[in-house]
Amino acid sequence: MDNYLKKGERIEDLGLNNLKIIQNPDFFCFGMDAVLLSWFVSRRIKGSPHIIDLGTGTGIIPLLLYGKTKAASITGLEIQEPLVEMARRSMALNGLSAQIKIIAGDIKEPGGEILPNTYDVVVSNPPYMRAQAGLKNNCETKTISRHEILCSIEDILIFSKRMLKDRGRLFLVHRPERLGDIISLMRLYKIEVKQLQFVYPSIKKEANLVLIEGRKSGKPGLKTDAPLIVYHQEGEYTQEIYDIYGMKKPE
Amino acid sequence: MDNYLKKGERIEDLGLNNLKIIQNPDFFCFGMDAVLLSWFVSRRIKGSPHIIDLGTGTGIIPLLLYGKTKAASITGLEIQEPLVEMARRSMALNGLSAQIKIIAGDIKEPGGEILPNTYDVVVSNPPYMRAQAGLKNNCETKTISRHEILCSIEDILIFSKRMLKDRGRLFLVHRPERLGDIISLMRLYKIEVKQLQFVYPSIKKEANLVLIEGRKSGKPGLKTDAPLIVYHQEGEYTQEIYDIYGMKKPE
Repeated sequence: MDNYLKKGERIEDLGLNNLKIIQNPDFFCFGMDAVLLSWFVSRRIKGSPHIIDLGTGTGIIPLLLYGKTKAASITGLEIQEPLVEMARRSMALNGLSAQIKIIAGDIKEPGGEILPNTYDVVVSNPPYMRAQAGLKNNCETKTISRHEILCSIEDILIFSKRMLKDRGRLFLVHRPERLGDIISLMRLYKIEVKQLQFVYPSIKKEANLVLIEGRKSGKPGLKTDAPLIVYHQEGEYTQEIYDIYGMKKPE
Repeated sequence: MDNYLKKGERIEDLGLNNLKIIQNPDFFCFGMDAVLLSWFVSRRIKGSPHIIDLGTGTGIIPLLLYGKTKAASITGLEIQEPLVEMARRSMALNGLSAQIKIIAGDIKEPGGEILPNTYDVVVSNPPYMRAQAGLKNNCETKTISRHEILCSIEDILIFSKRMLKDRGRLFLVHRPERLGDIISLMRLYKIEVKQLQFVYPSIKKEANLVLIEGRKSGKPGLKTDAPLIVYHQEGEYTQEIYDIYGMKKPE
């Protein structure tokens, strides 16, 4: 299996249908956000949709959605070549190169393989920070993954409005801090927010993530799911988090 | 004290600085929403602001804010004459007719007593339902209190944009269902959403209320407070709710 790996990389077992992923800590390792988003999406979609993941990075979301849904097709779009190449090796490692397509490209100028009104579901765990905000990371790959340099909320909405089928759905994970921007822009691009779920580190803390579902040409009216609490106050994961990760709670 | 009362009315003790309020179950009795909104506002404001409550009804919010803040002035605006008259009697009952002014009027055409760029804080517990939605109540007073017939979200924002000082704050309680409308309209009227707090009936249930703070000419960027949970799963109020009501938990 080691012949799939380059220097600095490691293989992580996803604990789901024997799926594995290649990661490189020098780039950007997937976090809880990708796991929670995949769980949120898999709970909401039925049937066998055509799914595309924008800024797929390591390919974690396509892999988790492959394990958790009956998608008709799953595509991951990524602009950074080293990540594209690594994600493709992860798909090969799992024998899924035919089932999960990793496309190199820019969401602002998607190539001819990506056609308008084609997808039932667009998913994204995009960069959270405004291009100008915060300290830039030394590593360019990490900076692009965290800052809206190549992919802003508006870019995702322009893509989704064009590529989603009518009534198709957009799923995002983001920081609650940006929710004013997100909801206003969604309405502007006729993708109406339909479901929110806030993630709180503990029951006494501010939310630090929000899971969002929008629907192309949807009517106004949204639901806010029960709070998702990550840690008990004692610093131990809640049962819900163990369930989402498919892990057993340690005795 | 009974000479303050008309037929069908009762006096309720607010359990706060000996304040009392007149209610009439045939109209619209205040609920937990007004109590939570007053608590949310009183935690956030400092100094001695000029406050106006839109659609004050029985006058519950002015009374609670009088008890919990050091407001320089508190005004309640109400369009329904029977409620104006009842709220004024509540203020008289408390000896607060000079401190809390109840004005009869329409938020869409506020009279000469209400001047632009005057208020530090606008508060409202508005009707939650669209004018067309749901079954109308037989009682006209209840219908007007619950449906956006005389007071829509947009009416509140037009009022707030005009009457708030620059950097003044708008506080609302509403149904999460309407949050897409609220956040989009707030941005349109340059009142940026700055703080949200979701109220969940229990930790396993969808949110059924949301507390909202906006700031006139505020920059984008919002925080989402820790979840406010109303009941333990056993159906007993949480300690936080007892604290907000200033009640002792029964032994």
